[in-house]
Amino acid sequence: MKQIEGGVCAAAGFTAAGVYCGIRKNKTKKDLALIVSEKRAACACVYTQNLVKGAPIAVTKRNVADGYASAIICNSGNANTCNANGVEIAETMCDLLGKALGIPAFDVVVASTGVIGKPLSIEPIAGGIPSLIESLGDDSDGAARAIMTTDVKKKEIAVEFSVGGTTCKIGGIAKGSGMIQPNMATMLGFITTDAAINPAMLQKALSSDVPESFNMVSIDGDTSTNDMVTILANGMAGNEEIAEAGADFDSFCAALGMVTQYLSRAIAGDGEGASKLLICAVSGAAGKGDAKKLAKSVINSPLVKCAMFGADANWGRVLCALGYAGVAVDVSKVGVRFSSAAGEIEVCKNGMGVDFSEELAKAVLSESEITIAVTLGDGDASATAFGCDLTYDYVKINGDYRT
Amino acid sequence: MKQIEGGVCAAAGFTAAGVYCGIRKNKTKKDLALIVSEKRAACACVYTQNLVKGAPIAVTKRNVADGYASAIICNSGNANTCNANGVEIAETMCDLLGKALGIPAFDVVVASTGVIGKPLSIEPIAGGIPSLIESLGDDSDGAARAIMTTDVKKKEIAVEFSVGGTTCKIGGIAKGSGMIQPNMATMLGFITTDAAINPAMLQKALSSDVPESFNMVSIDGDTSTNDMVTILANGMAGNEEIAEAGADFDSFCAALGMVTQYLSRAIAGDGEGASKLLICAVSGAAGKGDAKKLAKSVINSPLVKCAMFGADANWGRVLCALGYAGVAVDVSKVGVRFSSAAGEIEVCKNGMGVDFSEELAKAVLSESEITIAVTLGDGDASATAFGCDLTYDYVKINGDYRT
Repeated sequence: MKQIEGGVCAAAGFTAAGVYCGIRKNKTKKDLALIVSEKRAACACVYTQNLVKGAPIAVTKRNVADGYASAIICNSGNANTCNANGVEIAETMCDLLGKALGIPAFDVVVASTGVIGKPLSIEPIAGGIPSLIESLGDDSDGAARAIMTTDVKKKEIAVEFSVGGTTCKIGGIAKGSGMIQPNMATMLGFITTDAAINPAMLQKALSSDVPESFNMVSIDGDTSTNDMVTILANGMAGNEEIAEAGADFDSFCAALGMVTQYLSRAIAGDGEGASKLLICAVSGAAGKGDAKKLAKSVINSPLVKCAMFGADANWGRVLCALGYAGVAVDVSKVGVRFSSAAGEIEVCKNGMGVDFSEELAKAVLSESEITIAVTLGDGDASATAFGCDLTYDYVKINGDYRT
Repeated sequence: MKQIEGGVCAAAGFTAAGVYCGIRKNKTKKDLALIVSEKRAACACVYTQNLVKGAPIAVTKRNVADGYASAIICNSGNANTCNANGVEIAETMCDLLGKALGIPAFDVVVASTGVIGKPLSIEPIAGGIPSLIESLGDDSDGAARAIMTTDVKKKEIAVEFSVGGTTCKIGGIAKGSGMIQPNMATMLGFITTDAAINPAMLQKALSSDVPESFNMVSIDGDTSTNDMVTILANGMAGNEEIAEAGADFDSFCAALGMVTQYLSRAIAGDGEGASKLLICAVSGAAGKGDAKKLAKSVINSPLVKCAMFGADANWGRVLCALGYAGVAVDVSKVGVRFSSAAGEIEVCKNGMGVDFSEELAKAVLSESEITIAVTLGDGDASATAFGCDLTYDYVKINGDYRT
């Protein structure tokens, strides 16, 4: 298994495109993305757990109920959520794309991201579909950029792996930035693979991966209404179809994990206004669920996030966040260390402060990727959560996002 | 029942003081506060639910276990939490004060607020106690200022009320600002009354009041390690002691509620970096617990808070926060209105956007106190939560608080 160049077009039989169609005012920002599989592909999805759900989620759920899909269309700039005619608009997007590509409308996955509660007009999308299809090619750059909202960096990765001796590829793109604390699914993540795997095993792989990857990301604790991760597997690599648990399924899951872990970290590090990627690694917890709650509590604390922005080794805030996580922790056994490319520093042992060099602490916390390692004395479970610091720019971006 | 001048010294028999003793570097900021009752008083407390608890909490719990106390000592600048000798320091504070005042150490309530995990030296406190006692007077200004950390405004109020024909007084001071999402107790709140009420009924009054007042405040979702609310009732007004439920107890609870509601709103409006007080009033919920969860979810959403800072009527974020609150809500019946001194504007009806004037919305949201009214169609329960906007200054204050 190794990382290779590319994103959603790395796997055989997939093409992608991104264009500006006119949903956004800013004409230099692409706002319509397309991913197409040459062959109808097995498809699995996970969705937001927010009770308020975008119309595209309802339409996609229905379309992929049979376990297959051929294309993904996604617009940015408007979430198509809380609109009276939202479902009709999402259905029309599938209809128009299906006709243009010569595939059934029910083989289209549709997604939207942007402002909630603003009517979405079908005109720019209808007008953009022809040029979108014309632009299809084997570079996922356009699609990766077209799904971005306040993201600063595009997020794509591809991985090569082997299934029973056959070389397969898997790749993905994602967008994140704000309103991000995925719960069951996430922001938008689109993954493609040429491995042959049946829909049930594909769903199983995705559903067991997401709790350890995208669901461990939190930018601001706000679970979006439009989160979705979709994976298409078109089987064009020619391996024997994965239809049950075993070594082949494990290889597939490992490759999928490499893609989702990369995208999760990329989303966290590119959170709205973020200047630093924060990783909280909790070990020694009584159970997996406890470890996750604790890691997320630390990564979500606005006070911890601000301290990391200011490179201030205020570990008391880490203890405070552990203490209110709703998990039974033996405080007298808690240890905390900060580490980064500049080194490692122990700040708390057995629940009490230890002397440390403020100078080294400042150096460690001034790096762009910081790990907060929390050790407990309650058991053997561990979990890692991904987040980012809280900066002036988060406030700036979100103080006037809509208008 | 009416509001009167003053704070913790309004009730008969109470004096207070605040001095600078040397815990803080900044000599112009008082850091040691004292409240004394002439007569030993019935005492009730509620405390933080954070598993990581400040040493003063442990000592206070033990001291007030008998239901009585005579004095409250509180330092700011250091939380005396996660320190190896924290309990010893807190006990010594009680001992020294008790000796100086001629009261038993176990009649002292001790509290600390400030940085976690930094050793607290007894020297400045021991040195400061004589001048603290010398400064005792019937103005609570000094004490109200000495307990402040990053608070900008002092918080005090007093109320006059009648118990069975006898005029009684009740007043309080509080500090809030950051690390604030009280859970069971709150930040620091000290309340005094000259009403006669036995310890059990006093605790009952406080315990039923806090869930509707301090516990409905959230600045940043961080429940502190040192939250505490204490009330002293010295009986010097001369009313017949309240020893059971009934009209007298109800009068007392109403006056207590006036004090705690005022202090809760003052804490929310003076949250770290806050420029606006946010009030989320949820009605039509299926149950009280649901209504509270929903109101707090809205008030805690960083995205809602940023939008309010930017006077942006981004109501989709309110719906999003309702949707992830973990409560079963019929989204198709949700209504949202924003109001302030500048007027009221309906932005969402039956879960969908309604046309509104962006100009009026901007005017409404530019005021310093904004109400977000959420109407549901799920039942008759309601709740109100208090918070504040998220601003550049919150990030600034918390990016470098410790050093």
